Amino acid sequence: MKKEVFYGKGMAKVKEDEPELYQAIVGLNDAVWNGKALDYKTQKLIAIGIAASNGDSRATEKQIKSAKKELDVSYDEVVDVLRVVLLTSGMQPFNKALQIANKVFEE
Amino acid sequence: MKKEVFYGKGMAKVKEDEPELYQAIVGLNDAVWNGKALDYKTQKLIAIGIAASNGDSRATEKQIKSAKKELDVSYDEVVDVLRVVLLTSGMQPFNKALQIANKVFEE
Amino acid sequence: MKKEVFYGKGMAKVKEDEPELYQAIVGLNDAVWNGKALDYKTQKLIAIGIAASNGDSRATEKQIKSAKKELDVSYDEVVDVLRVVLLTSGMQPFNKALQIANKVFEE
Amino acid sequence: MKKEVFYGKGMAKVKEDEPELYQAIVGLNDAVWNGKALDYKTQKLIAIGIAASNGDSRATEKQIKSAKKELDVSYDEVVDVLRVVLLTSGMQPFNKALQIANKVFEE
Amino acid sequence: MKKEVFYGKGMAKVKEDEPELYQAIVGLNDAVWNGKALDYKTQKLIAIGIAASNGDSRATEKQIKSAKKELDVSYDEVVDVLRVVLLTSGMQPFNKALQIANKVFEE
Amino acid sequence: MKKEVFYGKGMAKVKEDEPELYQAIVGLNDAVWNGKALDYKTQKLIAIGIAASNGDSRATEKQIKSAKKELDVSYDEVVDVLRVVLLTSGMQPFNKALQIANKVFEE
Repeated sequence: MKKEVFYGKGMAKVKEDEPELYQAIVGLNDAVWNGKALDYKTQKLIAIGIAASNGDSRATEKQIKSAKKELDVSYDEVVDVLRVVLLTSGMQPFNKALQIANKVFEE
Repeated sequence: MKKEVFYGKGMAKVKEDEPELYQAIVGLNDAVWNGKALDYKTQKLIAIGIAASNGDSRATEKQIKSAKKELDVSYDEVVDVLRVVLLTSGMQPFNKALQIANKVFEE
Repeated sequence: MKKEVFYGKGMAKVKEDEPELYQAIVGLNDAVWNGKALDYKTQKLIAIGIAASNGDSRATEKQIKSAKKELDVSYDEVVDVLRVVLLTSGMQPFNKALQIANKVFEE
Repeated sequence: MKKEVFYGKGMAKVKEDEPELYQAIVGLNDAVWNGKALDYKTQKLIAIGIAASNGDSRATEKQIKSAKKELDVSYDEVVDVLRVVLLTSGMQPFNKALQIANKVFEE
Repeated sequence: MKKEVFYGKGMAKVKEDEPELYQAIVGLNDAVWNGKALDYKTQKLIAIGIAASNGDSRATEKQIKSAKKELDVSYDEVVDVLRVVLLTSGMQPFNKALQIANKVFEE
Repeated sequence: MKKEVFYGKGMAKVKEDEPELYQAIVGLNDAVWNGKALDYKTQKLIAIGIAASNGDSRATEKQIKSAKKELDVSYDEVVDVLRVVLLTSGMQPFNKALQIANKVFEE
């Protein structure tokens, strides 16, 4: 299940056209999410923080949506991630990600 | 204690010269680290992930050092953060942060 | 008045749900815009330059709009900011911000 | 012909209002694309990689479109650029750029 | 005099080896700093803000040094630029730039 | 041989401590550099452009060094990559990378 998280829509075409690249991405994905010390949820919250800090709306929305759906991550947990984004990375990425979080949890 | 984490060396001068700016930073810092839903350690791991993803050596070292010292964060936990950095942000920031982590935990 | 500039739409919910975070942001905002040496307009132009350099369309549009409305910043002044963006940060962020500036000043 | 590549829609207004800035951009553009050692196509592929790595959707689309139209760059060539983006810069910019490439080559 | 500001050490070699690229950079530089509406000092402060926001230590130091030397920009003016960096871009780039500013003005 | 390119010093420890992560990185690396349409040298030049555009001194130096050593990439070829960096990403990353290139080719 974890495997599917990072696979964008474009990946179906990669799977068909470039199977060896697809397999490498699957392998990376497995190795990344199966950490030794942290659970999947903590790693997922880190992925939200990174996407939000980079101002990447597309990745932020995708990460928050899958965190909510797969892991029952709450709105308050996402806001606590965004607090760290605010401190480290400022109001510009914080505002952008906050609106995305509000939208995802209103749905 | 949490308050001190983000205060760089330059902050001593700000405290003296620009007390209202210093107070605002203290206030922000308090509000950020006292989240509703996530504990301080999880927020700290997120801060490491963001610093590493941005390729900011200075902030990455500072965050890893304080995580190790204040919160007994282990090398394996830091590597699990960096796994997420590798997947989301690639080998260039991953390599940089990995060397910093290795250095901090060798000390 | 300055206080309102950086508050995105998501902030209304923060004000209600996380009042201590909201207060910290208000405090930071006040401390930032009330500089000792530079006037508000100069600081605002710097904020436009930073948003444009980062390729953040959302923040660039918001900053240019509020600069125009609150401070009567002219199109030529914004273009002079974007000249610096062109030199420091290249054609990719310059083009993006130029289109936003053109749109805001056509309205 | 090369000259036109980087000129966004906003540039028409610059040409009229700020002719000396426009001339400087034309001069830079000429100097950049007329390298000593690499051909235009290789430089163009580099520009795609940079735009994609920065997560700049607007520039990525523009570069891929003009590479396809002017230089007959193929889908496989673009994917080979994006392989490098994946390794250096991670899944977040890779996914974003892959969808853009798929869209441009479906048209 | 303005022309010299952005020319790093590497530029001497470019001037000799790639004269047409060098001329294009000179032309761009002239067009950028001779804005219609803003004076050179304001543009310079914007360049400091952009360099600091991007976490680019090298460019930040160079910009602050030349602002101090050529334009008598004061420490308080630089700190007012960095206030905007703090709000827009967060503590990580702010801390880095603050230490650089402190160092330049201690000299 | 290509495999070794991206492996930083920190990787020896990963190989020993986290063999599954190491294998995933090897797999990714193989899939990335063995493109269908572009040769290794072109992909390498793209990697230099991305590292330089991101202002990542460490990765830029490493890429230029291995390009020179493994593939006999010339100084003029690197400068032609940096021309694209100048146009897309501005003088700040261009200057930084130019100095690195000068240093590597003086050695």
